[in-house]
Amino acid sequence: MTGRVWLVGAGPGDPGLITVRGLEVLRECGAVVYDRLVASELVAEAPVGALRVGREPLEQEEINRLLVRLARRGLDVVRLKGGDPFLFGRGSEEALALVEAGVPFEVVPGVSSLAAVPAAAGIPVTHRGLSSQVTIVNGHGPLDFKALAATPGTLVAFMGLGRLTELAEGLIEHGRPVSTPAAVIASGTLPEQRVVVAPLDQIADAAGELDPPALVVVGDVVSLAETLRGVLAVAA
Amino acid sequence: MTGRVWLVGAGPGDPGLITVRGLEVLRECGAVVYDRLVASELVAEAPVGALRVGREPLEQEEINRLLVRLARRGLDVVRLKGGDPFLFGRGSEEALALVEAGVPFEVVPGVSSLAAVPAAAGIPVTHRGLSSQVTIVNGHGPLDFKALAATPGTLVAFMGLGRLTELAEGLIEHGRPVSTPAAVIASGTLPEQRVVVAPLDQIADAAGELDPPALVVVGDVVSLAETLRGVLAVAA
Repeated sequence: MTGRVWLVGAGPGDPGLITVRGLEVLRECGAVVYDRLVASELVAEAPVGALRVGREPLEQEEINRLLVRLARRGLDVVRLKGGDPFLFGRGSEEALALVEAGVPFEVVPGVSSLAAVPAAAGIPVTHRGLSSQVTIVNGHGPLDFKALAATPGTLVAFMGLGRLTELAEGLIEHGRPVSTPAAVIASGTLPEQRVVVAPLDQIADAAGELDPPALVVVGDVVSLAETLRGVLAVAA
Repeated sequence: MTGRVWLVGAGPGDPGLITVRGLEVLRECGAVVYDRLVASELVAEAPVGALRVGREPLEQEEINRLLVRLARRGLDVVRLKGGDPFLFGRGSEEALALVEAGVPFEVVPGVSSLAAVPAAAGIPVTHRGLSSQVTIVNGHGPLDFKALAATPGTLVAFMGLGRLTELAEGLIEHGRPVSTPAAVIASGTLPEQRVVVAPLDQIADAAGELDPPALVVVGDVVSLAETLRGVLAVAA
């Protein structure tokens, strides 16, 4: 009998931020295929006899085939992904592969880094009077700086550290004030979290020593970090 | 001794989508102050003797004061909010009030409706080749249709049902094709969930019988719903 697949969001880093439902299916699975950034505490929650496969050496196509193959061997498979499976998680590609193969599956959404990581730095991505709109981009994707510079509200860039200089310069070139508050949060929600806050024209220098994974936040809401950071202990 | 406050995201509706950490603090609280849309199963998880306060008759200022007052009575307070506290949750206003009053608090992020509700309708908000950018707006806030129409990727409107006609017409007027795929998902992730998918110029009519709470999604990713919907059982 074919097994099932669960595409589960593990959350932004802190293992306590997986959902109750996600942990439940993880604890009953026959195999877990996990991303590199997923907390080892979560991988350890799979049953003792469960197959554990790190996805890292695999290309996306290979992961798709692996999920199908494991399910056809009769295993109930948890695909444990950082953040949320359908927000820059490529979970929809895995879902389409499962549909095509006729393997039954379920999506268990997760806490995205989008708001959780800024929150861990004392930054609300929306705040009455400061921002009622959020734009989310992927640092690995195409970026239209002109359009982004003209967009009101908060800008959040996933995997934005590698292009931070280009991002800051592009926004300034197209009209964003050099004083626009910006932040970079590395390893957000984890004990090793590091936060740098600086005006847009200085953020790339200020964040020079941070390592990925990191989230970039640009907008007036960053100004709240001074007040809210430090007093906030997010899911510690 | 002053108690503490936890600003906890309850998730998009399905009670299984609260985080492990959120459920943990909820089960140990002395008082829970909850939004109307939070699942009653979650409110029931507070200890038997805990004070239970629905936030609905209260203005935001009154909630802020209530949280401070309860903590000063020595209670550990869980402020249980729909979705994520810092993404259109006004949690940051409560956080600022707690800072000002010197009440210690913690934020426990939650699964936002942003990606979870579209997922429950078979729609990934990002998908390779279709969308690598997401713009989130609030139907109750100001909307710049010209800028939104020119923005690539997926548009998600929280509480957008009441202005759906205005939203669709505004986007079309500023250049979005009338055939742009659009969806409205009411009561997303709950058993009573209803989904309507239609081209942008027909979505307002098609969704005429839906009731809030509802999320509006506009963009090419909606075209995946036909394939992914129905085979997806989200956290059922």
